[in-house]
Amino acid sequence: MSEETHTPVTGGCLCGAIHYKVSFPAGPETEWPPVPHICQCTQCRKNTGSLVVHFFIIEPKTVTWSSPAPTYREYSASPGRFRGFCDKCGTLLTWRSEASPNEIEITTGSLDESVLKEFGDILGKPVGGQYWCSNAIKGLTDVIPVGDRYTEGPGSAKC
Amino acid sequence: MSEETHTPVTGGCLCGAIHYKVSFPAGPETEWPPVPHICQCTQCRKNTGSLVVHFFIIEPKTVTWSSPAPTYREYSASPGRFRGFCDKCGTLLTWRSEASPNEIEITTGSLDESVLKEFGDILGKPVGGQYWCSNAIKGLTDVIPVGDRYTEGPGSAKC
Repeated sequence: MSEETHTPVTGGCLCGAIHYKVSFPAGPETEWPPVPHICQCTQCRKNTGSLVVHFFIIEPKTVTWSSPAPTYREYSASPGRFRGFCDKCGTLLTWRSEASPNEIEITTGSLDESVLKEFGDILGKPVGGQYWCSNAIKGLTDVIPVGDRYTEGPGSAKC
Repeated sequence: MSEETHTPVTGGCLCGAIHYKVSFPAGPETEWPPVPHICQCTQCRKNTGSLVVHFFIIEPKTVTWSSPAPTYREYSASPGRFRGFCDKCGTLLTWRSEASPNEIEITTGSLDESVLKEFGDILGKPVGGQYWCSNAIKGLTDVIPVGDRYTEGPGSAKC
């Protein structure tokens, strides 16, 4: 049996139709804590209605989804990239790219309240970077003091 | 013809199925700028996947919705309160309460990119307050330096 490096964290959508559990088995890409980042691109903003969206990256195999989840749907705003949400309540849950099949991004706000109270700082601090800072709104979305700031996506010029 | 106090602002969902235009006719409750606030309650977090959600309040009569908008749906997480979203892409667009029929809240992140670039500071600064700061995550969601901070909803104890 594989060793776990941390207790699982749980989350789901607002209406409760979809729930998930993320485990952290020992391994180079699955250890606690996962890597969080934030994004201010127009797609993320539109998709959530929020100005800044927090994600943390995990391996798909570490997630157990409630089953069946007939309200889970994906929307693709860019070729090969998929945004998973609940079509009963609108919650954005995931982002994934076909180019990175061993990664899936989970929205930090979809974590259960108890998880955010206990681990919100660890799962929210964007040590993985702040993306699309070219869209930052002065004094509102440029005030988080953690993480390298990139004008657009990861690897773009720094702000 | 009524006088407008500002050019209209526009927005919509990520997939483009729903678009809106908000006008600002002269009048005590419809003048520019509308009043923004932010919320960190668990319902808003779950609904968007984000840690902080920005809204601005307007009168329903000042909004023109794209028509027909067959993907617009409302979800009620609390009695008499409704969250409007697009069930094709998941975008949260509105929040309204039956108790306040002359108000509707629009999510700031659903505004069109050009509008956010020009008026994001005015439409995002939470001069109307920061709600549910009891859920704030230190150094991450308590760093916006504008607006009174309330532990829970408006009128609750201040943080």
